[in-house]
Amino acid sequence: MEAAFTQKKLSELTFAIIGLGLIGGSYAKALRRLGVKHILGLDISRGIAKACLNAHMIDEIVESGSPALGKAEVIICCVYPGAILEFVRHNAAHFQPGTLFTDATGIKGRLPEQVQALVPAGCEFLAGHPMAGRQGSGLGMAAAEIFDGANYIIVPAAHNTPAAIVWLENFAKALGCKCTVKISAAEHDSIIAYTSDLPHILAVSLVNSASFTEHTKYFIAGSFKDATRVADINPDLWSDLFLANKENTLAEIRKYQEQLARWTRALEQDDAAALQAMMQEAGPKRRELY
Amino acid sequence: MEAAFTQKKLSELTFAIIGLGLIGGSYAKALRRLGVKHILGLDISRGIAKACLNAHMIDEIVESGSPALGKAEVIICCVYPGAILEFVRHNAAHFQPGTLFTDATGIKGRLPEQVQALVPAGCEFLAGHPMAGRQGSGLGMAAAEIFDGANYIIVPAAHNTPAAIVWLENFAKALGCKCTVKISAAEHDSIIAYTSDLPHILAVSLVNSASFTEHTKYFIAGSFKDATRVADINPDLWSDLFLANKENTLAEIRKYQEQLARWTRALEQDDAAALQAMMQEAGPKRRELY
Repeated sequence: MEAAFTQKKLSELTFAIIGLGLIGGSYAKALRRLGVKHILGLDISRGIAKACLNAHMIDEIVESGSPALGKAEVIICCVYPGAILEFVRHNAAHFQPGTLFTDATGIKGRLPEQVQALVPAGCEFLAGHPMAGRQGSGLGMAAAEIFDGANYIIVPAAHNTPAAIVWLENFAKALGCKCTVKISAAEHDSIIAYTSDLPHILAVSLVNSASFTEHTKYFIAGSFKDATRVADINPDLWSDLFLANKENTLAEIRKYQEQLARWTRALEQDDAAALQAMMQEAGPKRRELY
Repeated sequence: MEAAFTQKKLSELTFAIIGLGLIGGSYAKALRRLGVKHILGLDISRGIAKACLNAHMIDEIVESGSPALGKAEVIICCVYPGAILEFVRHNAAHFQPGTLFTDATGIKGRLPEQVQALVPAGCEFLAGHPMAGRQGSGLGMAAAEIFDGANYIIVPAAHNTPAAIVWLENFAKALGCKCTVKISAAEHDSIIAYTSDLPHILAVSLVNSASFTEHTKYFIAGSFKDATRVADINPDLWSDLFLANKENTLAEIRKYQEQLARWTRALEQDDAAALQAMMQEAGPKRRELY
């Protein structure tokens, strides 16, 4: 028997979004934009769930542990990394066979296998997430546009079916993403430490430098603004993410410190050629990215 | 006798722009937007000067060493930091008495006194610059909009007159700047090492990390994009700027490394509270800036 999600159009499918924060709320808005059949929403805060219902971002509130979750043919889990397994333990009994369960977590580790072991037979957990987000946190920052032009990362495990992978690829494109990438969980976490954990650490560190004063604001231009945009992030979520990817993140900080050491050496030695060489190396690499 | 620039409206004044790169070209476009009387342009490249004339950004090309520079009542020098004194030595003899000479250099050092000592009696050098710029380099990136909403830094020295300082403040506002700040050269260079030199170093370092690969582009989102925007900068200009502000910049790198060391300690000790404290410190500071 083929799973419902592979047989139906998006406009015929019922989705459930678990966790209605910045990312979950953005999925809700993007699903509404896509015109899916029905959107269930679950959040630990009753007030947040009501706010989503009132804003027509979701069609129905589902309580944790409620059998109503069984109506969903696709479930997207957007809770903190440390809360996914708890959600699954409390709710997986109500997943209907044929359900696709996916997540939006920026760190994968052993999650794919751990979750798959907890869902009922006939349900499939396929890990992934959009390379998207923005400063701030919570429902107030949610926007369908975070998907537009973003990359969508899919992290298949041994238990995943080609049908689910293809479906998620097409779904990501429908959400507005530019391209999809498949990668193993271990590679994913290592690369993300460089492309996401590290930039957030750099931004927070720049704002926290002992040189920051009340007068700083008069002396900043685009470079400082851009370098610190993601200094304002959700501390609870991100401490989870950093610790779950601890070894990779520590390695990235070390590699970054090697670059700062290159600058220190070149400056101490008045070595204009070495300074120019670093910029000549970086310019083309940056232009290639965008 | 009052200097011409303090007596006339902008629409009655003749300006000269020295160096028609990203910043000089942006001044030319902004002066045109302001409707000043006449814009002279000088560049070491004849092709660049011709391109500015053809684009109606300037009204007249001036050669280095030409008496035609004497027509200017306000001269704005936008050459590399290392080239200002050379320009002054070759051209100051033609400055007319009453000329206001200003610059756009991101590093000041002893420049105010050095330049003032070289200009004819009755001319005044007042150092300053907009806190503005953008990625890339050269005339092709010039835009009047770089001034819009920017801060304008004025660096008065003992020889400067209140009339010149007030004029430059009003001129900066007319260019589109949001506010002006007055500061000594030594303080300026120290603060700029933090708010400008350091962010550029951080961006170049992130792109140059050993972790950068051809696959990086699939795993980046806003945080990496913003953190690396100014990794693509003019190596010749910036090696000048970094070396001219060497001690301050080295001090900023050291302070920044202390922040990275905080991250390393917190991660190694699985100290979620310490990680959260760093983010809780940074968030409000960042929000205050913008």
